Amino acid sequence: MLFTDFGLHGPYLGQMKTVLDQMVPGTSTIDLFADAPVGNPKASAYLLAAYAAWFPVGTVFLGVVDPGVGGARPPTILKADGRWYIGPGNGLFELVQRRAGQMRSWHIDWRPERLSASFHGRDLFAPVAAMLARGEPPPGRPCRDDAHRRADWPDDLCEIVYVDHFGNAMTGMRATMLPTDARLTVAGRVLERARTFGDLPTGAAFWYENSNGLAEIAVNQGRADRELGLSIGVSFEIVS
Amino acid sequence: MLFTDFGLHGPYLGQMKTVLDQMVPGTSTIDLFADAPVGNPKASAYLLAAYAAWFPVGTVFLGVVDPGVGGARPPTILKADGRWYIGPGNGLFELVQRRAGQMRSWHIDWRPERLSASFHGRDLFAPVAAMLARGEPPPGRPCRDDAHRRADWPDDLCEIVYVDHFGNAMTGMRATMLPTDARLTVAGRVLERARTFGDLPTGAAFWYENSNGLAEIAVNQGRADRELGLSIGVSFEIVS
Amino acid sequence: MLFTDFGLHGPYLGQMKTVLDQMVPGTSTIDLFADAPVGNPKASAYLLAAYAAWFPVGTVFLGVVDPGVGGARPPTILKADGRWYIGPGNGLFELVQRRAGQMRSWHIDWRPERLSASFHGRDLFAPVAAMLARGEPPPGRPCRDDAHRRADWPDDLCEIVYVDHFGNAMTGMRATMLPTDARLTVAGRVLERARTFGDLPTGAAFWYENSNGLAEIAVNQGRADRELGLSIGVSFEIVS
Repeated sequence: MLFTDFGLHGPYLGQMKTVLDQMVPGTSTIDLFADAPVGNPKASAYLLAAYAAWFPVGTVFLGVVDPGVGGARPPTILKADGRWYIGPGNGLFELVQRRAGQMRSWHIDWRPERLSASFHGRDLFAPVAAMLARGEPPPGRPCRDDAHRRADWPDDLCEIVYVDHFGNAMTGMRATMLPTDARLTVAGRVLERARTFGDLPTGAAFWYENSNGLAEIAVNQGRADRELGLSIGVSFEIVS
Repeated sequence: MLFTDFGLHGPYLGQMKTVLDQMVPGTSTIDLFADAPVGNPKASAYLLAAYAAWFPVGTVFLGVVDPGVGGARPPTILKADGRWYIGPGNGLFELVQRRAGQMRSWHIDWRPERLSASFHGRDLFAPVAAMLARGEPPPGRPCRDDAHRRADWPDDLCEIVYVDHFGNAMTGMRATMLPTDARLTVAGRVLERARTFGDLPTGAAFWYENSNGLAEIAVNQGRADRELGLSIGVSFEIVS
Repeated sequence: MLFTDFGLHGPYLGQMKTVLDQMVPGTSTIDLFADAPVGNPKASAYLLAAYAAWFPVGTVFLGVVDPGVGGARPPTILKADGRWYIGPGNGLFELVQRRAGQMRSWHIDWRPERLSASFHGRDLFAPVAAMLARGEPPPGRPCRDDAHRRADWPDDLCEIVYVDHFGNAMTGMRATMLPTDARLTVAGRVLERARTFGDLPTGAAFWYENSNGLAEIAVNQGRADRELGLSIGVSFEIVS
């Protein structure tokens, strides 16, 4: 399962999928997000934690949102509640770790014959993901639980973390953490909760619990991003 | 075969493909359109009917253009000329039905353990598509032929139904329904027919029969959408 | 391995993948580029040559950047250094050929039962790619080495040939052909070389050798395309 900020276009996903297909023939490589918040491991971390929980135990997540590629951030492996996560130790897996019942992590010691300076997704992380998908042991040494953690990040993020094809704006806030009558204040508007799109008149703005449990802002038969001026990083407040 | 208005980005297709891969390992899930006209089952219906006919008998089409998700539209299964169609009963399959030689339909009675309010593509339609791909019987009861039909929709639609990556504008009109010397009037321009791009000078606007039989408006080595001001829903007239 | 200018959206890739899946069940069809320079076989040729060399021997490349579809350009097969290339004989494979140690080419004589005027990718090139992927001999007759060549094209192209999701601008110039201290002059700016993004302050523009060997222009934590005004076809100069 790929979670990247590479975009679907261009050569990046194709090369990573080729590595996986060569090393684990017949496996299914599916994009969960190919357009995670660009260069933003923090927003990406809240998005990934909400979506990864839906997938079956045993799923291998290859997560590459890596603005520091070629720099000092460590390459890491995480096993959390039976799922594997491989990627840069830059906070991308912080919320998965924090919400996990069971968790272990490793620092990747393995290095490929040829490691480019700018594409560790292809050269380092994809081969390690393939090893784990084949059932091999993690090619590294265990980390302490608190290595590379982001203790200062909140449990839920009062910001937009993703805008989808319809213009709906996902937040980094789990809907179950909000009172059922909570209202969200964003861009000068106060939004009530609804169950789903059809419950409100055309053109009405609202928030609802999306199909993976995040609070999401939408406009019935409209685009919330344009009509409310929402984009990744815009913050909101909760009023009751 | 997926036909959706979800866009390729974001988590929607990845979750649907995961359901299909879990339930039918080794099957091929291919996107036919991931950017069908957003929230527009009518335009989508003409597009789907033109493209589905190209695919082999036995193909399973999972069609989700579903602005009324969570509302009252029924979930349906259609078998038409040996191909399966699963999706909302909102007119999306109307033109497939109307052009079919043999046809049966079912109302889906099966419900998953967990049905989200906003993502029936993942929770309801994908599992049903997987059941049919595995050769299981339709999990529902037969519908009358005329249930959920759209008798008032025309046999061909004099509107743009899709604009592709090159800026070419597909119409909802089958080219074989037009006289060979028909001209199309659109956006104040009168367009002649050509066989293909190379038959006209650079910059010339024309219409032609595209590779799936639809009348399509193009500009040789240019973008018809920008140069003629075309987008989904723009209508045209036929002159002879 | 698909290399096209079709875009990921719309029905084109899905239909080509369906042909490949029907003819070679279980094979992996991966997009290398789906957004090669539109209608520009020359820029595409430098991009393809740089990326194809990364793939294993035996890879089959189906390359469709074909503005002259339906016209007189010949359909061709190339075998170069153990990799297969299928597509229009319009220069798209010129740089692959020029850099190959071993090379043979064929003119495709085979024709499908039904050949549309505008989609040879689906009707002609995809079936031929499937035949080669199955190990069948090339369905055509050998060409002379110099047939359909572009002897007047340079060995490296001093132009932008691709802009990626991050706004980085790839050139048609191999980095190894440049002095290590070369500077690039583009859009009125003089750019120094860096190893990778993290080596420079935020906002700095530079060039570097990308993970497939091309000189690429980037801005650390910014978008080079917008900040420097770069797009496909913009030329640059080399100063030492």
